[in-house]
Amino acid sequence: MQQYFGIKKENDTIYLNEKDFNHIKNVMRMSEGTKVFTVYNGIRYLTILNKDLKSVNIIEEANNGDIKNKLKFYVPLLNDEKMSLIFQKCTELGATDYVIVNYERCKYKLDSEKANKKIIRWNKIIMEAAEQSYRNTYPVIEKIINTDEIENNGSVNILCSLDKEDVKPFTKVVTSEIECDNINVVFGPEGGLTPQEERIIVEKGYEKVSLGNEVLRTETVPLFISSVIKYLIRSE
Amino acid sequence: MQQYFGIKKENDTIYLNEKDFNHIKNVMRMSEGTKVFTVYNGIRYLTILNKDLKSVNIIEEANNGDIKNKLKFYVPLLNDEKMSLIFQKCTELGATDYVIVNYERCKYKLDSEKANKKIIRWNKIIMEAAEQSYRNTYPVIEKIINTDEIENNGSVNILCSLDKEDVKPFTKVVTSEIECDNINVVFGPEGGLTPQEERIIVEKGYEKVSLGNEVLRTETVPLFISSVIKYLIRSE
Repeated sequence: MQQYFGIKKENDTIYLNEKDFNHIKNVMRMSEGTKVFTVYNGIRYLTILNKDLKSVNIIEEANNGDIKNKLKFYVPLLNDEKMSLIFQKCTELGATDYVIVNYERCKYKLDSEKANKKIIRWNKIIMEAAEQSYRNTYPVIEKIINTDEIENNGSVNILCSLDKEDVKPFTKVVTSEIECDNINVVFGPEGGLTPQEERIIVEKGYEKVSLGNEVLRTETVPLFISSVIKYLIRSE
Repeated sequence: MQQYFGIKKENDTIYLNEKDFNHIKNVMRMSEGTKVFTVYNGIRYLTILNKDLKSVNIIEEANNGDIKNKLKFYVPLLNDEKMSLIFQKCTELGATDYVIVNYERCKYKLDSEKANKKIIRWNKIIMEAAEQSYRNTYPVIEKIINTDEIENNGSVNILCSLDKEDVKPFTKVVTSEIECDNINVVFGPEGGLTPQEERIIVEKGYEKVSLGNEVLRTETVPLFISSVIKYLIRSE
């Protein structure tokens, strides 16, 4: 069954946005009376399409083991293909927050006008992935920040590093025994973070971790970590 | 899997120190027959704990960097973009074998000439991903098979299912305690496997597993599973 995010609720009626109306009418070719899931304000309902195909009527609540943990990725600014992949896949896998960071070695540059357009595009990808995977909530990208704006408000804050020294294995820092329900993750762009950037982030209290012997491409790192967190706390 | 440094080696037996004996017995609560990595004289071995828990017997060399486990994906025939993504990312994450399966609901069709060209292309993507991630070995795709040619030669054979009944949670079937070093994974195309196909595969001894509440796109399933296996056995 399809799932959509509603934009307004009045009594038992939830209204859908223009994009979803188009999807319902022209892609799915659904008609009045078709059942869909509709999420409004973090609550998921079993609903039935109205004749206008722009609104639904609630049958009952249909909550679905909502994601309770926090998993925030500080995503280095990469090219559109890699960003789209990260946002789509990690949203399916349960990431809850994304913040884009412009590091010294990010080769992909965006002026502020283009950045705003991209952020709109990426937020759309995130919402579609959340609908597809039946999530009740979805991350929203707000802006692109610099290294010194990274926050250390996870119960675990990790910095993925290719260093061989002064790093702990990821498997020792993130385990089913450790409270991994509120994690902040920093990882570098191609070419890595500069020593200066790493120092700033470590000084904020981030722990340097190693992801193992095989070297992962930048965009594979958050896919790997989202998968592990999903496995450890949400795959039952 | 745990790793220890041996203090003495006689033929195929390596002896562990008192600290590790305590760790094995009182912290890990392992028993005779448990597999551990043991390093002696700079060489890393896959070993098996003896009854005294103070020594191990060598099964084989397991030098760091090389992937020793087997992780075989039966990949449904999907479009080129999805196939490329699966082969690139799962190779980075440590998959060792791919077999392509043409299921009834595979929308993407290839005649045998085009199939050969695609297989050459996908094998190139695999090799590049293997180089990128410093692997010593890489999977090779040979051909496209039908459902009845699927083999059940893993020590664990799982079928990822969207069913709510007669499925076990993935987290209960694939754990760090279970021998997950030789896994065969079957998953369906968009629209899933037909009941007939599922029956054939279950009759071959595959166990139906559920991957949790969030619904993953087809191509995300092997990324998730490769990540979990990497975490469980290769991220130390």
